[in-house]
This record gives sequence, structure tokens and C-alpha cells, in this order.
Amino acid sequence: MTEPNNKYVLTLTCAERPGIVHAVTGLLLKHHGDIRELKQHDDQRSGTLFMRIEFEVAESKEIAAEVAELEASLGQLAEEHEATWGLRPTGQKKRVVVMVSKFGHCLHDLLFRARMGELPVEIAAVVSNHPDHRQQVEWNGIPFFHIPVTAETKPEAESKLMDLVERFEVDLVVLARYMQVLSDDLSRKLTGRAINIHHSFLPSFKGAKPYHQAFERGVKTVGATAHYVNSELDEGPIITQRVQEVDHSFEPEHLVAAGRDTECKALSDAVRWHYEDRVFLSASRTVVLR
Amino acid sequence: MTEPNNKYVLTLTCAERPGIVHAVTGLLLKHHGDIRELKQHDDQRSGTLFMRIEFEVAESKEIAAEVAELEASLGQLAEEHEATWGLRPTGQKKRVVVMVSKFGHCLHDLLFRARMGELPVEIAAVVSNHPDHRQQVEWNGIPFFHIPVTAETKPEAESKLMDLVERFEVDLVVLARYMQVLSDDLSRKLTGRAINIHHSFLPSFKGAKPYHQAFERGVKTVGATAHYVNSELDEGPIITQRVQEVDHSFEPEHLVAAGRDTECKALSDAVRWHYEDRVFLSASRTVVLR
Amino acid sequence: MTEPNNKYVLTLTCAERPGIVHAVTGLLLKHHGDIRELKQHDDQRSGTLFMRIEFEVAESKEIAAEVAELEASLGQLAEEHEATWGLRPTGQKKRVVVMVSKFGHCLHDLLFRARMGELPVEIAAVVSNHPDHRQQVEWNGIPFFHIPVTAETKPEAESKLMDLVERFEVDLVVLARYMQVLSDDLSRKLTGRAINIHHSFLPSFKGAKPYHQAFERGVKTVGATAHYVNSELDEGPIITQRVQEVDHSFEPEHLVAAGRDTECKALSDAVRWHYEDRVFLSASRTVVLR
Amino acid sequence: MTEPNNKYVLTLTCAERPGIVHAVTGLLLKHHGDIRELKQHDDQRSGTLFMRIEFEVAESKEIAAEVAELEASLGQLAEEHEATWGLRPTGQKKRVVVMVSKFGHCLHDLLFRARMGELPVEIAAVVSNHPDHRQQVEWNGIPFFHIPVTAETKPEAESKLMDLVERFEVDLVVLARYMQVLSDDLSRKLTGRAINIHHSFLPSFKGAKPYHQAFERGVKTVGATAHYVNSELDEGPIITQRVQEVDHSFEPEHLVAAGRDTECKALSDAVRWHYEDRVFLSASRTVVLR
Repeated sequence: MTEPNNKYVLTLTCAERPGIVHAVTGLLLKHHGDIRELKQHDDQRSGTLFMRIEFEVAESKEIAAEVAELEASLGQLAEEHEATWGLRPTGQKKRVVVMVSKFGHCLHDLLFRARMGELPVEIAAVVSNHPDHRQQVEWNGIPFFHIPVTAETKPEAESKLMDLVERFEVDLVVLARYMQVLSDDLSRKLTGRAINIHHSFLPSFKGAKPYHQAFERGVKTVGATAHYVNSELDEGPIITQRVQEVDHSFEPEHLVAAGRDTECKALSDAVRWHYEDRVFLSASRTVVLR
Repeated sequence: MTEPNNKYVLTLTCAERPGIVHAVTGLLLKHHGDIRELKQHDDQRSGTLFMRIEFEVAESKEIAAEVAELEASLGQLAEEHEATWGLRPTGQKKRVVVMVSKFGHCLHDLLFRARMGELPVEIAAVVSNHPDHRQQVEWNGIPFFHIPVTAETKPEAESKLMDLVERFEVDLVVLARYMQVLSDDLSRKLTGRAINIHHSFLPSFKGAKPYHQAFERGVKTVGATAHYVNSELDEGPIITQRVQEVDHSFEPEHLVAAGRDTECKALSDAVRWHYEDRVFLSASRTVVLR
Repeated sequence: MTEPNNKYVLTLTCAERPGIVHAVTGLLLKHHGDIRELKQHDDQRSGTLFMRIEFEVAESKEIAAEVAELEASLGQLAEEHEATWGLRPTGQKKRVVVMVSKFGHCLHDLLFRARMGELPVEIAAVVSNHPDHRQQVEWNGIPFFHIPVTAETKPEAESKLMDLVERFEVDLVVLARYMQVLSDDLSRKLTGRAINIHHSFLPSFKGAKPYHQAFERGVKTVGATAHYVNSELDEGPIITQRVQEVDHSFEPEHLVAAGRDTECKALSDAVRWHYEDRVFLSASRTVVLR
Repeated sequence: MTEPNNKYVLTLTCAERPGIVHAVTGLLLKHHGDIRELKQHDDQRSGTLFMRIEFEVAESKEIAAEVAELEASLGQLAEEHEATWGLRPTGQKKRVVVMVSKFGHCLHDLLFRARMGELPVEIAAVVSNHPDHRQQVEWNGIPFFHIPVTAETKPEAESKLMDLVERFEVDLVVLARYMQVLSDDLSRKLTGRAINIHHSFLPSFKGAKPYHQAFERGVKTVGATAHYVNSELDEGPIITQRVQEVDHSFEPEHLVAAGRDTECKALSDAVRWHYEDRVFLSASRTVVLR
């Protein structure tokens, strides 16, 4: 799907106060930006405003010049309000590195959705601590980096990863069942730029082998949680969760199999919403303007 | 739950053109309306704009006077843009007449939700073509009207109904498994003011005995559809649909039982969203700004 | 719905070994029991067999005599295999005591389903530590007992409860949002005979105020868990779980409201399956032969 | 996952009469078959019995000989009762031909699940009326046959297909978004041996472009239906259905995208249950013993 290049997404978040929506829409009006969809939410506890606007610049205009001026004006407005903001064309793909270990279903799902154009991303590289998925990745025309990790080599491995993130000018790191815990340091560096899929409905069953924990507890639903990585294991802000009904006949290995679909779906939804600029961090939670 | 009286919902729909959001938020700013949540959607096919804003008027202000001025200004703006609009305090309950036949589960569900304060409605009266539910309705302190309907008495019965709608100053008629087809004339009078629950996932299984039709076809899901009434049977704009998985062991009477929960949930969601001013008619569809 | 009295449900559980199904179906054949549905599951870890059979006794037979003989033969077979078993007519309602505190939605839901004949139970009594629901319960023709509980009076209150359980010859105690923790002693006495609804998808958010815990963690689904009570708080064997999607706009009080429907549904499903003899205890888990 | 070769699935369906379960389990007992799971259902309208048994033959026995004798005895029993039956080792993969047109998501999903061992099938060949997916199929080591279809060449194309079905000794044909209507003749030949995925919750939106039909009707859920092919278009017995919530913001192309996941899941579930011998035809419906 080729997108016309006059469509933009504007996001803005700042301390809540009257007049922000009016001011921003005033700038859009001045620069011939016609709003297609606007969503704005106030988080009342923290007093924070979150806003996302899809708009089109009238075709007859000098689009590049208009947008440049709009950008300058927005920057000024944002400075006054100490706002965090972003403006980007909707057609523009972002670049992602996918990290994976032995379980390949999420990787495979992301590769297919990216190839189909269903996910607005370009997978710039795949990194794994196992060599298993090289062939499949390279068949998709994507470079594959095998970076083994042991307790001793972890700092070195993480440093290689950050090199790749910089070299490929990557916007997001997707941990698609990457079974290594990132160091505090790397987690901090990747704050808001790394999405992990955990194979349980957090906060149930943190840590290792969640499906086996779920079996022991005898739950009747299993789930998957896509969340931003932070420095506490399985404690990062949740973007989305999906669950699936199970019953007594599911042994742990059946739970593992049953969970694959929910994992793929939760992770790809999270990545899509991130790339559509719908997800905002709000302390330990997320605001998702769908 | 008593609501503070400085919270309002503003809705507006008109032909799409640049500057509307800016103009409306300008009026809010002028009259000390602080936006809590704003959702705006353009339907690109029809070129129609739909907008819903929750806002609070600053407590320190003369709220009634501010809102009166805002109302006047909005009226003027709406006239210029040939917009349909509404402004009302969020704490204000609307008045509803519920119509029912023999199956009482949706009625019962609505009575309970209204009593709990979960549904922002006041059930002003219940009308039925059967006497069965009188005791339960009256126990809730609500007047019950038994209006039998036969082919001959239908015009008269419908006229009685319209009398009640007017006498009780009712905003909405809820057909909670009312098993009589309304006349074209009455349907037209109630356009956008009557919600029906149909016990199938429309457009499958229109007309009578949908669960029996579903059984014959051997479907593996059954559903319920809440929709506005129009003059074509089971063809009105859909507000929401819910489904439930079933299997080969369900005889028609089990489908009927299984469907009760989905019917109750779909109908009460539709009524809530209607009363929260989230549902907009858009030709044969609805826009629901949740 | 009046049920014909020649339909029975037979349940049996014992250590797994060859020949059990053959032996039991042999007895049914001999006593003119015609099988309508048979479900049998082996739990391979514990080596336990679970079986549920719905059958009809041929109408032409002396049903009472046939069933009595069948019962005797089954008793003998069960003794040989050290099996736990049960045989009862499907039309026979069981008797239940419902316990409730201030939140009345689950109570209300159970009352309605029982009145409709949708739940095969007779609510023999309602017990509450608050007087709030007396009027509604008594309107349904059911005795209401107000038993306040404080730290000091708890033993006395529990003893009163057990008196009621015995006096009303109750088969099951349903904790329908009863906000008091049962003592170890009472929990033990009620093992396998008390179902609780917990308002989270356990094991997430055990203990008090789970929706507030869920809000703090920023989850995107909330849920409800129906489980048998045991002596560890919120650790009993799970019968069923239901979840519902939520988003950033849900404050704790909205989560509470959103969760009501899942709580009602999970609890009533659990009670129904229990009464249809579909739920078997298997150590810390349940086997549910639906 | 390599499966041990002493596990079997036995299926049997015949006119309902007393003693069948007893007789079959007697043969299993005699031939050292230990039942792991048994499910039996009577369809009371048609008076038909459906039964599925998973069992293991004791390891110490001459398994092949035992099973051969069991098979002979079952054959005799089946003849007496005019039963349809089957017996096969659970580890044995069945052979499938997948047919596809331009949309590749279901094909891709099946290829991955088969490769993972999650679907107990061997994809013997892929047939398409377009050349698009050749590369991907051949990368999986599976032969790809491009058989274009026009109004004139349809008989010839279908004859080629049947040749492949015979040549590859295929047990099932999977229409994975194959956008050609099969002839009556071919449909009849493939009765009970061809599964199609239709991209709506049938019987809504039969025929072409169901997502566009769904958009026009303004539905709030879209779905997918996996069903056996018969000679009436989109009228074959339904195996499973899945739905997904949508809203006003979904244009037809978004519905198409949103539906992909439900299509993949419904189709792969249907294929899995078919291969696990869980699906029985019962006139225009299916019985699925999960």
C-alpha cells in the first residue's frame, strides 16, 4: 500500500492546562492542515494531557514548506508548554531490530506482516543468541546477526547490540521471545524504545516458564502481555494483553502451543500501535489512543 | 454516584471542513471550559465530521451563566456550519420507556443497572403486551402499562404508546425483547430515539425465531445485535454486536438460554453509549466515539 | 422447564486402570440405562480417571427399581476400585446458601437465574454481614439472615452459618462477593462445597481491592475467577475465569463497574457446572467435563 | 515432537442404540487398549451416536498384532451396527493439498504451523490459479502447481486438481482463500474431504466481497467461517467460526486486514480438529468432539 505523502500524525503530551487543543488546532488551520481524526485524553491523577491528530495538508499547497513552517511553530508552542511532541508522515516506515532466541513464531509473524505491508515497519536486522533462524531471515532479505550470550559475554553482547541499533538507525527494538534478561544499563538506554512479549497475563507468572507456572496453578485462561522494557523484569508499562481459554486437558506443552497465537497477536498489535504513534508512556502505565 | 454539576458533554456533527475543532475549542476556552476528553472522527465517504468533547467548567466561575453564554455561542456557530449539536451536563439522567413481551431478562438487567446507578437512565415506565412483569416492575417503583396488541388493535396500541412517550417526556424507547413489529409510521416517529435488541448477529437470521434458524444452519457462534429502529425490519443502524461460542450439543432451547447474556450486554452497552452521547447516526451506519 | 424423571447423571473418579468404562457401561446396559453423553478424561500425572455419563432409563421399565439396583451395583463396583461416585436425577434441584456483603450484583444475578430456571438450584437462604439486600431477597420469597461479623464475633458468626447450612440441608455455599475471609476451620468443613468469586484473574491481584491493584499495575484486561474455597486465601482450585478488555481511561471505579459482568458470568457458570456434576477436584486443580 | 507409536484414535458413528459404548470398550479391554479420553454424544433428533476414543496399547504387548486383531473385531462390530468407523495412530500425519489464489496469509499460516509440528499434517502440494506464491512454497520444500482457471478451462483445471489429489494420495483439500467456485461435480467428489475458509460469519455475507458487504451493512463484528465444501456455495457444514470486533473507523480495506487473523485461526483450528478426528458430519451440521 503506497500512502500519499500529504498525511501526517501529530502527537503531543504535556501538563494539562486549558487552551492546548485550541492552540494546536490553530496552528494546523494556519498551515492548511485538515484534521481527519483527533483524540485527546487527560489523565486526571497526573494532570497530563495526551493528544494525537491525523491530518492532511491540502494538495494544492507547497506541502514541504507548509509542514516545515508548521513544525517550527509547533516547536515554539511545545517549548512554551514544556511539551513532548512529534510530527511525521503516516507513509513513512520506521526501522526495527527484532531479537529472538529459539522460539520463532513471533519472529515469523512479524516478518510476514512486514512483508505484507500490514505492519508499517522495516525490519532492519534480526539478532539472535542462537543460529536457528538465519536461513528464514536471510530468505526475507534481512541481515541476521548471531550474538551468543553467556554470563561472561553479556556486556560484550549487549554492546554489540547497541552498535547495531546505532548502525542501522533503529527506532525500536522488539524482543520477540528473546529469552535473555537485558542488563539494567541496556534497559535504561532503550527506555520507550524496546517492546517485549511476555508469555503470561502479567502480573501473573513473572519470570521463567510462565506456562508451567500456569499449569501448576490450574488456571483456565492463559495470556500474553506486550510491554515496554524497563529495568525491572516483567514490570514495564503494559501496552496490550490477550488471553485464551484453556481447560484441564492442557498439559504445559499444550499451553505453550495454545499461547503462540496470543503472543503473536499481542506483540504485533503493540508494534503497530507504537508505529502509528498511538502509545504514550504515563509513568508506569500507557495511554493508547486507538 | 452523584456527579458534580460542572461536567458537560458537547457533541457536534456537520459537513467536514477545516477549522471546526479550532472554532469549538475556542468557544470552550473563552467560557472557561477545560477539555477532559475530545474525540473527533471524519467519515471520508460522506464528508461528515463527528465530534464529542467532555469538559469541565472551572469551579470558581458562575457556571450557569458561563454555560448559557457558551450555549448561545455554540448555537450561532452551529447555524453557520449547519451543524447538529448538543450540550448537556454529564450528571443528568435521561428518561426512557422500556418495552417488553414475555422474555424478561433484558428488562430485568436494565432495571438492575438503572437501580445500581450503572446506567445513567431513569426508567420512566415499562410497557408490555403481556401482564407478566407487572409485579417486578412495580416493586422497583416504576409504573407498568399493559397494552395488549392484536392485528386490529395495533394502531390504537401504538397511539397509546406515543401518548406515554409524550406524557413521560421520554428521550428513548428501548425495545427489550418486545416481540411486536412497530408500524412504519411509529418507526419513523421514533427515528434515532428507539433501540432494539435482535437476538442474532445481524444480518444473519433476520425475522422470527433466529435461534432456531441458527440451529438449522449449524452455526458455531450465536450473537445479539443492538440497533436503532428504522422502518425496515432488522435493518436499522447497528450500535453494537456481541457473540458467544456454541457447539453441537446446543439444541435450540439451549441457544435461547446461551444468548440471554449476550443480549443483555449488547443492549445495555448500546443504551449506555447512547446516553453518554457517544453514538452518532451516519446514514445506515453508526459512529460510536468510545 | 420441568424435566422428565428418567434422566440421570452418573459421575465417577478413581485411580486410572483398564476396564472401568467397560464395567460401568456394562452395569448401565444391564439396568436399561441408555447413554446420551459420556465424557471420560485421564489425568496422566496423577493417574486419575474422571468420568461423567448422562443416561436415560427406558420409559417402559420400573424406573425406581432399576435405578435402585443400578445404585447397588455401582456401589459395589466403586468399593472394588476405591472410587468416588454419584448418581442423581438431572431434574433434581440442589440447595444453596448465598453469602453476600454490600455489592449485590452477583446475588441479584443468581436470584434471577434461579427464578428463570436457568440455574438448576434452589436458593434456600441468603446470609449477609450487612442488612442491605433483605428486601430484595425476601421479595423473592427467600429467607434472609443478617449475621454481622467483627474480629470478636467471627467464631460465633461462622457457627451460625454452619447451623444454617445444616438446618437448610444445603449442598453448596456460594460466596457472591462476601467480603469476609472464612476461618481455616470453616474453609476445611466446606471443602468442595463452597464456591467463591474473586474479582481478578488469579493469581494476579490476590487479597483486597484487586481492581485498585490492577489500576496501579496498568493492566489492559481485568478478570474474575470462580474457585472452590480452601484454607489458603485466593488459592483454591479454579473452576472458571473470565476477562474483559479495558483501557487507560478506566479509573479504579470504572474497573469495578466493568468487572461486574465478568464476575456474574464466571460465578453463575461455576455454580451451573457444579450442579450439573461437571466439576471434579484434582488436587489443586479442577477437571471440568463440559 | 516425535509421538510414541502405541497411541491410537478410534472414531465411530452409527444409529443410536444401547450397548455400543460397552461393546467397543469391551474390544479395547480384550486387546489391551487403555482409554485415555472418551467422548460420546448422541444427536437426539437424528438418533445418531458419535464417539471418539484416545487409547494406548500397553507397551509390553505385540502392538501391531494387537491392533490388527482389534481392527478385525471392530470391523465386525461396525458391520453389525452399520457403523462408520476409523482407527489410526495419533502420530501419523495426514496428507493435504492446499489451494490458494492471491491472498497468501492462510497459506503462509498453514506452512508455518505444519513446519513447527503444530498441525499434524504434511502439505503434499500447493495449487494456485496464480503464480505468486511459488517461491515461498518451494522454499518450504513443497511442490507448487500453477493451474490457471478461466470459464473455458475450468473443467480441465479441476481434472488436473483431481489428478494431483490422487497422485499425492491426499486425504484433505484445504481451500485457503482459493477464490474460485468449485464445480458441483468436484464438490461432490470432495464431500467431507475439502475444507474452505469463508471470510464472513456465515450465513451473513455469502458470495463475493463479504468485507465490502459488511462495511455497507455497518456491522460491528466481522468474522470467518471454516466449513466443509458441498455443492451449494457457502452452505457446507460449519466446523468453526471466529469473530473480531470492529468500529466505524474501519474502511473495507481495514476490514480485510482485520479479518486475516480470524481467517487463519478458524482455518487452522478446523484443519487440526479434522486431523485429530474430532469432526463428524451430521447432515448439514458438524459434531466436533473437542
